[in-house]
Amino acid sequence: MTTATFSRIALLGPGLLGGSLAMTLRERCPETRIRIWGRRLESVEEVRSRGLAELASTDLQPVVEGADLVIFCVPVEAMSELASRALPHLSPNTILTDVGSVKAPVVKDLESILTQESCFVGSHPMAGSEQAGLGAARADLFEGSVCIVTPTSESNESAVERIEGFWDSVGCRVRRLSPEHHDEVIALVSHLPHLLAAALAKFVADRDPEAFAFCGPGFRDTTRVASGPPEMWTGIFSGNRQALRTSLEALIEMLNETVTLLDAFDQGRMLRFLTEARDARDRLMRVC
Amino acid sequence: MTTATFSRIALLGPGLLGGSLAMTLRERCPETRIRIWGRRLESVEEVRSRGLAELASTDLQPVVEGADLVIFCVPVEAMSELASRALPHLSPNTILTDVGSVKAPVVKDLESILTQESCFVGSHPMAGSEQAGLGAARADLFEGSVCIVTPTSESNESAVERIEGFWDSVGCRVRRLSPEHHDEVIALVSHLPHLLAAALAKFVADRDPEAFAFCGPGFRDTTRVASGPPEMWTGIFSGNRQALRTSLEALIEMLNETVTLLDAFDQGRMLRFLTEARDARDRLMRVC
Repeated sequence: MTTATFSRIALLGPGLLGGSLAMTLRERCPETRIRIWGRRLESVEEVRSRGLAELASTDLQPVVEGADLVIFCVPVEAMSELASRALPHLSPNTILTDVGSVKAPVVKDLESILTQESCFVGSHPMAGSEQAGLGAARADLFEGSVCIVTPTSESNESAVERIEGFWDSVGCRVRRLSPEHHDEVIALVSHLPHLLAAALAKFVADRDPEAFAFCGPGFRDTTRVASGPPEMWTGIFSGNRQALRTSLEALIEMLNETVTLLDAFDQGRMLRFLTEARDARDRLMRVC
Repeated sequence: MTTATFSRIALLGPGLLGGSLAMTLRERCPETRIRIWGRRLESVEEVRSRGLAELASTDLQPVVEGADLVIFCVPVEAMSELASRALPHLSPNTILTDVGSVKAPVVKDLESILTQESCFVGSHPMAGSEQAGLGAARADLFEGSVCIVTPTSESNESAVERIEGFWDSVGCRVRRLSPEHHDEVIALVSHLPHLLAAALAKFVADRDPEAFAFCGPGFRDTTRVASGPPEMWTGIFSGNRQALRTSLEALIEMLNETVTLLDAFDQGRMLRFLTEARDARDRLMRVC
């Protein structure tokens, strides 16, 4: 399946993901007509000057009207309001999706707002960077990344398949999860790691600001995601705070056991802990 | 200052660091004569087949005899025994250093073993990779990385300067700390991040092995160092367990505060936490 099934795509939000999608589509599906909505005139003008869309506007109506696919590329907490504003201008049979990192509350809200006119199916392409905005956008951002599509019992199966086909056409490896299962899994592999990276960066800065002068590549990589936009991540943590809290508490329990392991230092037990961790990380690199 | 001040260098241990040093020296200082000792015949033969040294042997004597610089590139827990074995074959005025991630106990042991014959000054080049062994060695591994040199009140200042000149000549940015200060700082920026990465990889594998199929680049980077050799890291954690424990306990305290922050979700406070973390990480990227 190719994006030939969508002839006019509206991208709402020309940030890292929206901008990268426009660049990817221009390369892979040059026949697709792309319109982009941006909240700020400045970003809309950047889209225009880079020639990323046939139309770029701060006005929602001309962007979404006539689109057969609308993709919400705005922070999760901004989606409901934008969906309500887009609703009156949507054509019948428009399919809508998003790129948010939290799914259960977003899907619930957007399904209830959009259900009568159109068909919303949640998506989460696991592509990104600690850098935000159109300036960091790349045509190969989605290449080989996992995209989770999160249908519900309300979803139209044919719309789900078209959305899956779309992500496949921009280079993603598509997987399907329920919104609730998505949020549990992503708490583990994305939100908790982000929280840890942020805590570690702040911890070291609080404890010994001079220590940064002695960092190697390990610290740089371990904390990389902490450079991501705080506003966006506040919205994500808020949206998924229950699953994140559950994971964080369980991780703290493991860290407390590690304190005990350091106290009564037993080479064999520490070696086993680190070997299990190494094997887990290596397994990850094989499947992901 | 250049390595011209050292004409014959003995590298003990042809792993990632020893092998990379040999490759770097061959490129930057082709006139330097390099001899390499390896514990296993297999790795010695690999050194020979790659032409990395004028002599490679499992016999310590011909490697260290006549060397004006000896560098211990073996795991921290193996250094004392190797130093005792090398001692009878050292020439007067030989300078010795190491590349270990832990300094206070290593420097104490090696200074007491080597003091009568020669001059030992500890070093810790903050270069590395999660991959171990000669196969992962690279001629540019040290390029731009920080190398911490850790003299004590016992150290001969001229030997310290020659060691600093050596690291400078292979591309490192040299800094000086006492062994004890080194261990505190490195607990923060290297050992604690490693422990967290390991805990996170093991935690996710224990909790939901299926979750790895949904990982993005953030999880890969955050846990990268957990793929490092468990034996080596057991030795490092053992050597620096007190400073590591102190840091870990304080970090757990911060994580417990974060649980409270998630419970009583206050957008403003979470935004402040993530903004401070982002600013800390960005500051790091400017200084490091």
